[in-house]
Amino acid sequence: MDKPISMPVSGVNRTRAAELMAASSLAALVATTPENINYILGSQLRASNWTMQIYAVLPQEPDARPCVIIPTNRLGVIAQMGITGADLYVYSDFFVEGSIEGKPSTPDIDLFYSLLQNTTTHAGPIEALEAALEQLGLKGQAVGVDEMRIAPDLLAKFAGGLPGGQAMPAYKLFRQIRQIKTPFEIERLRQSAVLNEAIEQQLIDLIAAGVHEKELAEHYRLAVMRAGGTPAMTAVGAGPRSALPLIENYFRVIEPGDQIRFDLCLQLDGYWGDTGRTVVLGEATPWMEHHFQAVRSGWEQALEMVRPGVKASDVFQAAVARVQKEGIPHYRRQHVGHAIGLELYDDITLSPGDHRVLEPGMVLCVEVPYYELGAGGFQIEDTIVVTADGYEFLTQMERKLFRK
Amino acid sequence: MDKPISMPVSGVNRTRAAELMAASSLAALVATTPENINYILGSQLRASNWTMQIYAVLPQEPDARPCVIIPTNRLGVIAQMGITGADLYVYSDFFVEGSIEGKPSTPDIDLFYSLLQNTTTHAGPIEALEAALEQLGLKGQAVGVDEMRIAPDLLAKFAGGLPGGQAMPAYKLFRQIRQIKTPFEIERLRQSAVLNEAIEQQLIDLIAAGVHEKELAEHYRLAVMRAGGTPAMTAVGAGPRSALPLIENYFRVIEPGDQIRFDLCLQLDGYWGDTGRTVVLGEATPWMEHHFQAVRSGWEQALEMVRPGVKASDVFQAAVARVQKEGIPHYRRQHVGHAIGLELYDDITLSPGDHRVLEPGMVLCVEVPYYELGAGGFQIEDTIVVTADGYEFLTQMERKLFRK
Repeated sequence: MDKPISMPVSGVNRTRAAELMAASSLAALVATTPENINYILGSQLRASNWTMQIYAVLPQEPDARPCVIIPTNRLGVIAQMGITGADLYVYSDFFVEGSIEGKPSTPDIDLFYSLLQNTTTHAGPIEALEAALEQLGLKGQAVGVDEMRIAPDLLAKFAGGLPGGQAMPAYKLFRQIRQIKTPFEIERLRQSAVLNEAIEQQLIDLIAAGVHEKELAEHYRLAVMRAGGTPAMTAVGAGPRSALPLIENYFRVIEPGDQIRFDLCLQLDGYWGDTGRTVVLGEATPWMEHHFQAVRSGWEQALEMVRPGVKASDVFQAAVARVQKEGIPHYRRQHVGHAIGLELYDDITLSPGDHRVLEPGMVLCVEVPYYELGAGGFQIEDTIVVTADGYEFLTQMERKLFRK
Repeated sequence: MDKPISMPVSGVNRTRAAELMAASSLAALVATTPENINYILGSQLRASNWTMQIYAVLPQEPDARPCVIIPTNRLGVIAQMGITGADLYVYSDFFVEGSIEGKPSTPDIDLFYSLLQNTTTHAGPIEALEAALEQLGLKGQAVGVDEMRIAPDLLAKFAGGLPGGQAMPAYKLFRQIRQIKTPFEIERLRQSAVLNEAIEQQLIDLIAAGVHEKELAEHYRLAVMRAGGTPAMTAVGAGPRSALPLIENYFRVIEPGDQIRFDLCLQLDGYWGDTGRTVVLGEATPWMEHHFQAVRSGWEQALEMVRPGVKASDVFQAAVARVQKEGIPHYRRQHVGHAIGLELYDDITLSPGDHRVLEPGMVLCVEVPYYELGAGGFQIEDTIVVTADGYEFLTQMERKLFRK
């Protein structure tokens, strides 16, 4: 049975985007990174090569339709993803023959065929982008461009046709817009966190003497894939290797008495999950108990601070001071948390140099890890959304030193 | 048991790189994309965010050691991957405590600890890059920069310190160096092709009435992951959906009489595999036989043309003319193959506008697909290496219309 296409919904906050564009006197923003394209369209369109250019245009006017600039060979992907909320501008040759009248078809083929019939091909990506802006009535107006994933020569070519010959770099502006999550995005981030924790619980269940770190990492990655997600950083470190912050290779077979640190990252529909816990196989030593409790106190302190109007840097200072006071006097960190969304590190970190204030709708991963080479590492990482009077957890697992 | 680290070997052709740098009067190249970094180091170092900057420096002098510029938090990854063939220049704060003397450790922790003790931290990525060039004795000399994955403001800052205030864009130069594969790279590409075909054969074995396209796609992705690879584009299209060139969503349950088209892509240690075949469940119709034979003749024609000195565009023209002559008079294509390597589309395509000549050591995917909406699609895609007097297959599967 051929399933109908479900149309993607996008997380974009058009009102906030319009306000921030107006404040910078920009008539539109051009997204070039998959994350910002996803923010506008509700679906990622990944290029298969660095030279392939894919853009999405977000007009300041909240009711104006976004536009997508893609190579012709991506029309079929647009049709399969059911992207119908944006106007399409295509470039480069791609040949597909045939007709579908009276022949076997599916909804995506119908849409693909109609797109092939009705879409004008432009000479190149910049010509297609300029046609989109002209159609939007924005030709000659100031435009910001997400500068991170556009070929520099094409950016220069495009900027040449703008007022003053310049396009304002807009990657940071996109991140600023994305700081405050829409209810749709909070729900997506909740799903990512819940999936991540469900699989993390499976890993805890699998821990036993003789199990290789690699088995746990592979279980995680395959489980994420089966759930329709994309696994990313998979820190699974046992024994002395629990002290390694990032883990990308797996060397150790778990032994009784090992502490195992998890810091697990995935993407689901583009939205990141990033959670972590620490487990001991057998009895925890007094050293483990002591250091875990210190870390956990710092994490609690960070959460106690979280509410609208509080500076990110103040959350940081309070959490670090608490860990130092509770038993790790030499404790140092570069941050005790970060915003999460379409990027693993969205804008705002709970760090000494970030003096911006928290606002309702920000989604943060709060983490106060400790890494001691020659001894072990500890992690508690949870995801929260800042609410009007505090915060709400998107994560559910117990916040304890797990025992197996 | 803790396994020792195996040191990565890189595919870089230092002699060819030196010649092409000399021809452009460049003292060094700076890689910024994961592909070009992998080319230099033999290992990918992926940034977790667009703002995170990772570079590798390849000096023109073939005996000079490459350098890596990374945030401090990537030192542990360098240690786990066993990257010891490059000098390290780090930036930004990252805190790990402890000592390992007389304590439980592993080879990667030993290396990580020694790196933490012996690596100077620089203020930022450009300061680290400048320190690397100064240490190489290349300060003030002309340098090319892979312009595709460096933050534009940082590129401008770096270029300001170069002769004439400019860095030559070097993404294309890296691709030109990578056109001719080293024996190490050919072996890696053979492994990717062999793995891809082994899993493709499993998909053919799984084909039966009632099997969903999605099951085949998921089997492919999980099998690639289990083999240590990364699955990418997974075109599995049955019945009318076999005519869709790129497939990213799966809608159809296979029925008797369906033709199923595979075009499957993976990465293994950074090197791409991209192969394809077509299968019929039950008896092929005369229309299927006719069109498959036309496509297969074009593919044979392309291969007959492949040898050093032949223009890529001449291979294209001959293949398309042959398909037209053998039974699809309206046949059109934008290319009949592409170079493959650390990018899915490396430099050189068998296309009407690419008049460069083939050279020994080029690795090409040769494909002459046909897509007819309302009818079906056909694919044969193989990987070859150009040799002194022709070519050698890296792929092994039969080149037939498979029957199930």
